[in-house]
Amino acid sequence: MKAKEMMDKEFVYVSKNDTVVDVSIKMEEFKRFTAPVLDADMKLVGWITSFNITKGLREGKTLISEVMDPVENIVSIKEDEAAKNIVIEISNHKLISIPIINDDNQVIGVSRSVDVVNAMSALYDIKVVKIYEAMEKEIRGITWEELMEASAKISTRTTGVKITAEEYEKNIQNATFGEAIWATGGLEKFFAGLISVGEIVIARKVGRARR
Amino acid sequence: MKAKEMMDKEFVYVSKNDTVVDVSIKMEEFKRFTAPVLDADMKLVGWITSFNITKGLREGKTLISEVMDPVENIVSIKEDEAAKNIVIEISNHKLISIPIINDDNQVIGVSRSVDVVNAMSALYDIKVVKIYEAMEKEIRGITWEELMEASAKISTRTTGVKITAEEYEKNIQNATFGEAIWATGGLEKFFAGLISVGEIVIARKVGRARR
Repeated sequence: MKAKEMMDKEFVYVSKNDTVVDVSIKMEEFKRFTAPVLDADMKLVGWITSFNITKGLREGKTLISEVMDPVENIVSIKEDEAAKNIVIEISNHKLISIPIINDDNQVIGVSRSVDVVNAMSALYDIKVVKIYEAMEKEIRGITWEELMEASAKISTRTTGVKITAEEYEKNIQNATFGEAIWATGGLEKFFAGLISVGEIVIARKVGRARR
Repeated sequence: MKAKEMMDKEFVYVSKNDTVVDVSIKMEEFKRFTAPVLDADMKLVGWITSFNITKGLREGKTLISEVMDPVENIVSIKEDEAAKNIVIEISNHKLISIPIINDDNQVIGVSRSVDVVNAMSALYDIKVVKIYEAMEKEIRGITWEELMEASAKISTRTTGVKITAEEYEKNIQNATFGEAIWATGGLEKFFAGLISVGEIVIARKVGRARR
């Protein structure tokens, strides 16, 4: 995933000649706590947060140019960088948004912490059955039935609750990846389970071939 | 992970009798765009965002009680709920923070989208070698050498670049889970790779037993 796939293209931006009052109304209307200050070429010249605005209103400042943070202090990400760089920057600097720029240094979007949470939420919400369908396509020479049988066996072994292949298949129709990690007790246990599934599948094949 | 493990305990809160000006200064100082309005018992009576503050400053309002959002509109999470509920609420309602309450309805923390991004970033940053070490402990009858050999073979097959077990082991010392997902081309391909590792490990065992 690239940075440009995890940004808000309909971002709110302002000009340094806008008034503090007008920008405060715009930010309330669009529910944005931050906004890039751009020139006529869409290039970054400053950054505004609600903190610059409240301070400006209290002190009776007129123009955005009087209250904005200077461009040197702004962390930005190139559109073709890995999306995970957004996660790292937001996490390290406790940002709630970060401008995404193209090769001409024009701002083409803003990635917000909410966009990152959305991406994470989507990952949590992937149905386990979808992951299995993708895995079936990826792995050569494994049938759906073999996957379900092996997974049911591993599930029985891990949880101590006996479950058939049919029951397992029914369970994963609605369970999400987030719930699966939760249920198996952590990422590494979930992964270890997948390796064990592979072991069982091949052990059964070898068993059948011998008979 | 429970909700109370993914929150900011040092949260900023205000009283409905505080002035709008004082709260604006406090929010700037602590860099908070939102704050719960609490009574003397730490119970939630309202909610403030920077938008309530900028509007209040423009309109010359004096007290927080005149500008706060009413308590009925506030989404909150119980401390013992699953942390993923925070992710879901933040994602669904595009929130940047959410109050965490105990059984007596007292606010004990605020979970911010930045806290969620931090948790996600920590997941991305887990070293692959740590996942393998945990997997080695989880899976009965697999040695470290077998895991490395099988993983090197799968990596060679997937990427088309030949790699030895020793080189693979060296690579995963520094690679993170985030980078591994990126390198293999997605979550389901990463998972399929793990299943294939299991297949190879057992196939080799069977091969050796036959000889």
